Formats: sequence, structure tokens, C-alpha cells
Amino acid sequence: MEKIRVELGDRSYTIAIGSSIIRNLGQSLERFDFGRKIGVISNPTVFHLYGRPLTESLVQSGFECIEIILPDGEEYKNLSSAEKIYEALLSAKFDRKSAIIALGGGVIGDIAGFVASTYMRGIDFVQVPTTLLAQVDSSVGGKTGVNHILGKNMIGTFWQPRLVWVDIATLHTLSRRDFLSGIAEIVKYGIIWDRDLFEFLEREREFILSLNPDDLTHIIRRSCEIKADVVSRDERETGLRAILNFGHTIGHAIETATGYASVLHGEAIAIGMLVESQIAHLLGSIDADVVRRFRNLINAYGLPSGIPAGLDIPLFLESMKLDKKAVSGMLRFVLPDRIGSVSLCDNVPEAVIRQAVDHFLSA
Amino acid sequence: MEKIRVELGDRSYTIAIGSSIIRNLGQSLERFDFGRKIGVISNPTVFHLYGRPLTESLVQSGFECIEIILPDGEEYKNLSSAEKIYEALLSAKFDRKSAIIALGGGVIGDIAGFVASTYMRGIDFVQVPTTLLAQVDSSVGGKTGVNHILGKNMIGTFWQPRLVWVDIATLHTLSRRDFLSGIAEIVKYGIIWDRDLFEFLEREREFILSLNPDDLTHIIRRSCEIKADVVSRDERETGLRAILNFGHTIGHAIETATGYASVLHGEAIAIGMLVESQIAHLLGSIDADVVRRFRNLINAYGLPSGIPAGLDIPLFLESMKLDKKAVSGMLRFVLPDRIGSVSLCDNVPEAVIRQAVDHFLSA
Repeated sequence: MEKIRVELGDRSYTIAIGSSIIRNLGQSLERFDFGRKIGVISNPTVFHLYGRPLTESLVQSGFECIEIILPDGEEYKNLSSAEKIYEALLSAKFDRKSAIIALGGGVIGDIAGFVASTYMRGIDFVQVPTTLLAQVDSSVGGKTGVNHILGKNMIGTFWQPRLVWVDIATLHTLSRRDFLSGIAEIVKYGIIWDRDLFEFLEREREFILSLNPDDLTHIIRRSCEIKADVVSRDERETGLRAILNFGHTIGHAIETATGYASVLHGEAIAIGMLVESQIAHLLGSIDADVVRRFRNLINAYGLPSGIPAGLDIPLFLESMKLDKKAVSGMLRFVLPDRIGSVSLCDNVPEAVIRQAVDHFLSA
Repeated sequence: MEKIRVELGDRSYTIAIGSSIIRNLGQSLERFDFGRKIGVISNPTVFHLYGRPLTESLVQSGFECIEIILPDGEEYKNLSSAEKIYEALLSAKFDRKSAIIALGGGVIGDIAGFVASTYMRGIDFVQVPTTLLAQVDSSVGGKTGVNHILGKNMIGTFWQPRLVWVDIATLHTLSRRDFLSGIAEIVKYGIIWDRDLFEFLEREREFILSLNPDDLTHIIRRSCEIKADVVSRDERETGLRAILNFGHTIGHAIETATGYASVLHGEAIAIGMLVESQIAHLLGSIDADVVRRFRNLINAYGLPSGIPAGLDIPLFLESMKLDKKAVSGMLRFVLPDRIGSVSLCDNVPEAVIRQAVDHFLSA
């Protein structure tokens, strides 16, 4: 089992990465100062696959478990689902020492974290991410949130987990499309921070796509290390942390414009990274062949590189201005300088954005 | 104008106390790093009285104001009101640099603080408390929250304001009953921390009840100093801060059992302080005449000292176990040792609690 430490003073925590480790979680939680009650929050699909080994391991270690199962899907990541969880916790008389485990992907992690941060002004929680996307991104760093009808993740908090427990065996039950969606975020870490990782992804494509455990562990560990490093330096996104949003300004706009339905998060980010790289190219920061190299890698992993046909561009730009990454109506972009390095840019002319968007419009 | 500093590292802030200072708030906010947009959250009664001078002062200082008016009353302090505020902020395109002002009593302050802490993972907010209770208690210390049908303040966060702006002139428009409710919390500070304040309340009763500005400023300042001191040492209530809950374990149970309807918060706390002092007496910590002296002061300010007739005691005790102050099903009490000093006690026998409750049951 590999361990990475996220250094955040008295909120520091460990990310553990291993294979088939879900059944060991109970034992490893014994050393924490949790009370006896633990709420496992999950969705039907994931709970069916991993719920039993997890709750058995918790009960074996003396915990009292309640299960809170939410319907699957981003459309249930809202205040009304949070309300249901509050209700369940209160009915089971959870107190300030009780804890929450998020067993699932990003939706489950985000909403469970939000509830943990707001139940009785904050209780402990543990992330058990079961999608690649959640393992390399949303489970690490303490961003929690639910969606509002007017925008994604508009309601949320910063609330760090006490532990992140990554079981790569769960990737065997993940759909191919969801797996590839997670690869998009790993490509992001390569572009913003680590040329070696980027080239590893180019070189080891076949092994990664066949779920070779060593390769998977390597790219997940490296992604978590990079995220941990960035988050340790800027927990609340006042500066550096914004670089993690590479691809996300355009990506979130695509998700908003398509109603979070037809495009997966990683797919939107893949397109977003290309559009934003094209903006960097139009502004003279990188050569066209670097953008091409990004596109080749993204396509090599079966990720889309074209903006879905029929998107309403004015709506698209408008929704971007309501993104959390906008300040005083200005859009902020993270633009690559070269492979492994990016800069922030606040004043991209709207015409350049449009031109870059047009470049990646599906025919 | 008097100023008190709440020391909390990079979350430190000032409490300013003065008379008729609402119209100066805009100017004093110019030195903060807020964006242009400010949302003023209030209720119809308070906004009618103080909304205009406040928003005029903000506009004069270059801010762009939106007004969000919630119906008056504890029964609206819930997630559905929070939802309405999110909606208004999103529609007005508030971003991460926008700020919120809470203009009103504890209900407005708690819900506005909760929304500030969860809108886009946290934006700035300023407390302008207009009730005595809010001025000496809820506006200081960063506790935010909304009620759940299963319990008071069960959903909330710790989120510090950037500034607390106390205008004692607002006390002239407060009902007598609400004013006296605030006095109960000031009595609490005397009992838990400051014998001088307790004796000042005994001695200056007439002047305080006639709203003498110097006396009011003195007791508000002293209360805020004590709260600031306690909160600075224990922001998240892991230890010392619990002493501020003196009277609140029983008090919240009374509020829950009466559905927050017939008894004001300060009235419940007044009764709670007496019951909890009686527990201390039954356990041998204080003499009966100290309890009598507390009762005399509480009665001298027209506050109730009897538990409302017809309360269902088993329900009452049950609801106490769901209080946030309970851990692993144990009730925690703050018990006076003498005037100006209290201790925490985790293992009060249920029979003692019942005996103390019975002692203060209304005939």
C-alpha cells in the first residue's frame, strides 16, 4: 500500500492507495478518535458492489453502521439530497463525534463532504473513491459541494477528509467511458505540472488501458502527489490552486450548456483543455504542434476533442461568467506555457475565446 | 465608538460598538477587499427601520446593493430560506469577492452567515445585529446555522464575520420582551466569567432598563469582550468554548419541547441557567442562596424562572440527547462553582436532572 501525506497543519491527512483494500478500512479507522456511529453514503450501484465488505469491516472493528443510499447521478447532487442525509443522521442520533464515509464517485464524495462540513457545524469524514476521476481529483483537497439549478457546485465548503482510501480494484467494475473520463484529469496533471507524467501517459497507453496495476498505481499516486502538493500550498484557492482548473473554465461551461447530461466531466475537461490550449496558442504562449500533441494524447485515450454540435455559444459564454472562477465578471484562464507548466491569465479578449471555441466546434 | 478585537489569526476581526452608526458602515467597508456587490439580508420589520440608511451608505461608498428580505421568525430559519438567498445571489451574479451583510437579529445573522459560508465555498460577511441578544451573543464567534425539523441549529458551520457593527440605537425599536431576552445572555456572562459584570447588572438595573447609553455600552462591550476572549482560545468548541453553553442544554430542550413558539431564546436560557444552577447545587457545587441570587436577578429583569406548564418531561430529556452538546448519548452540563466561574460536567445522573427540573416546574 502506498501512502501520500496532504500537509495542512492540524487538518493534514493521508491518502492510501492499494488493491482490494476496502475490507481493511475498519481496522485502519480504529486509531482515529471517531465515535461509534458511522454513516456510509453511497449509491445503489456502488453499494451493491462494495457496500457489504465495507460495512462488515466497520462492524468487525466495533463501529455501528447506517447506510444512506442516494440515487445515482449528478442530477441528485443537490440540497434536497443533502436534506435527506441530514434527516437520516438526525434520526439515527448522530452526534459531533460520529463520522461519515463517502463510498462512490465524485457526486457521492462532494455531497457527503458537504453534509459532513455542515452537520452540527462539521463532523469527520473519510473518502473511499471508486471512480478514477474521484481517486485522482475530487476525493483529495477538501472541495465539497452541491449543484444549484443556476450552476454547478455553487453551494459548498472547504472541508478536508480525515483519510482518503483508494482501492484500485474498484476500477475493474467501472465502465470504460467513466475510466477514460478519469484519464482526462491525469492528462491535466501532466500538462500543468509534470512533463514526465505526460510522457508516461503517451508511452504506457496500452498498459494503462489494460488496467495494469503498477501503471495504474503510478499514475494515480503521481496525480494525488501533485494535487496534495498544490492544495498544501493553497488550500482555499486564493492563488496557486487555480492551476488545477486548467480546462475547467470551458469544461464547466460545456457541462452547464449541455445540462450535465450528455457529456461526462472528464470529457468536458478534455475538450476544455484543448480549447484553452488553443487560446494559449492564439496568444502566442505555445506552438500549434504542442496543441496537436495534447489533442493526439486525448484522442489516443478515446476522449472527445470537439465541442458537441448545436451548443448555443452566447449562452455558453454567459454561463462561464457565473462560474466560481470568474471574479467581477472577468473570466480567468489557466494557460499552458509548455508541457508541465501553466500561467494564470485574467484578460483574454472575448474574440480570442470565440476563435478558440470555433476551432474545436464539431463539424 | 468602542472597538474590540476578536483574535483568530488570519480570521481576526473587529467588533465596533456605537450609537447611530449604521449610516457610517459603507465608509468603513471601503478599506476591505470586497468586490462591488453586497447583499443585504434582513427581515421586513428591521429593513423598514434601518434598511434605507444602510443601503444609502453602501451606495455612497460605491457598492452595488441587492436586498434579500426573509419573513420574520425562527420558523423561517431553515434550508428553504437559505435556498432563496442562494437563488437571489446567483441571479444577481454574485461572485467569490461579493459580500453579505446580515441586518437583523440572531435568525438573520445565523442564516446569512450560513449562506456566506457555503456560497461558492465561502464569501465575506458582516454582522449588523439589531437585537440585544444578537449584539452580545450570536453575531460574535462565527457560529452559523439553520434549524432542522428534528433540532435547532443542526445544520451549520463555523464561519467568522469580517466585521461586527453594533448600533445600540437599534435597541430603542426593540420590544421590551426581546430586550429582556438579551439581558439573559448578559447575566450568563456574569455567572460564567465575570462577577463584576454580574454585580453591575444587580446594581445598575434601573439605568439599564431605561436604556442609558453608557450602561448599555458597558454591558454590551463587556459581554463581547468575554465572548471574544473565549472564542479566541477555542474557536471550534473543542473545550473551553463549551462554557458559553451554560443554561443552553436545558434551554434548547425547552425551546424544542415548545416548538420555538411561546418562549424566547433568552427566556429559555434564563430558565435553563436556573435549572442548571440547581443541578450544581444538588451536586454540592454551590449553595442554595447563590441559586436564589441568580433567580432574584433574573426575576428583577422580568425574565421567567419557571418551566412552562404542561411540558412533557420524557420528550424534553429525549430531545436533549439530540442536542449538539451531547456526545455519545451523554449530556454535558456547564455548572457554576461560584459567581464568575463554571466547570464542565459529563456525568450528571438523570435523577438529579429530573429533580432540578421539577424544582422549577411552574405550579
